[in-house]
Amino acid sequence: MGTARGYEVRPIGHVESPLVDPATAPKQGFEGAPEAWVVLDEAVAEGAADLAAGAEVFVLTWLDRARRDVLAVHPRDDLSNPLTGVFSTRSPDRPNPIGLHRVTVAAVDGLRVLVRDLEALDGTPVVDLKPVIAGGR
Amino acid sequence: MGTARGYEVRPIGHVESPLVDPATAPKQGFEGAPEAWVVLDEAVAEGAADLAAGAEVFVLTWLDRARRDVLAVHPRDDLSNPLTGVFSTRSPDRPNPIGLHRVTVAAVDGLRVLVRDLEALDGTPVVDLKPVIAGGR
Repeated sequence: MGTARGYEVRPIGHVESPLVDPATAPKQGFEGAPEAWVVLDEAVAEGAADLAAGAEVFVLTWLDRARRDVLAVHPRDDLSNPLTGVFSTRSPDRPNPIGLHRVTVAAVDGLRVLVRDLEALDGTPVVDLKPVIAGGR
Repeated sequence: MGTARGYEVRPIGHVESPLVDPATAPKQGFEGAPEAWVVLDEAVAEGAADLAAGAEVFVLTWLDRARRDVLAVHPRDDLSNPLTGVFSTRSPDRPNPIGLHRVTVAAVDGLRVLVRDLEALDGTPVVDLKPVIAGGR
């Protein structure tokens, strides 16, 4: 089936956030994440032209500090939780460490997009933005 | 900032679906998509061990038939819709053509996961599965 072929994800920007320490960062954006900036590259400016304050957006990141060789984890790093296959968890450690973050756009300043509820660490590469549609899809 | 560095996404499986024609496939899963199979590779079996019928899951795909050089589109291929930056649309054409599909698991048969509401075309590479948490996140 050719599922072994890889594809190149190219960052379109990065996260600027006060969150720098994985150990203390919230595990989910709604668990007390600060405001953060998604800073887009000039090359994709046209794609971002219609982003506006108030938009509900999925930010997709590449969790570049994650481990790709992990297939089961104790959810939330709590050893009292049973070892669980990563596809049933939101662990950053997984074969393709793509972060999925639902955020609200608070402001747009050119290529800088201020968002609420983003738990990604400072410097994390951003690979896509998508509007939330139809009840969280 | 090093945002130019690329990363390799490696498929973990593929879609088996009666949908083979992009022109007639539904644009969103809730718009009449048939049941489809997500067929996972043996190498990631441990990661899928806790998937079960009834789970609400985001399937992430690599839309390998999309164009990566498109930054603005007429939403829903309707020319009466104004040209819109792709990060404000769910167009498959975008710099990183990662598909985000919210589905319900209907059944699990080993490495084959039957899902409802998946509009991806037959043969589309699958790159991640994540549980839906906290109201659509």
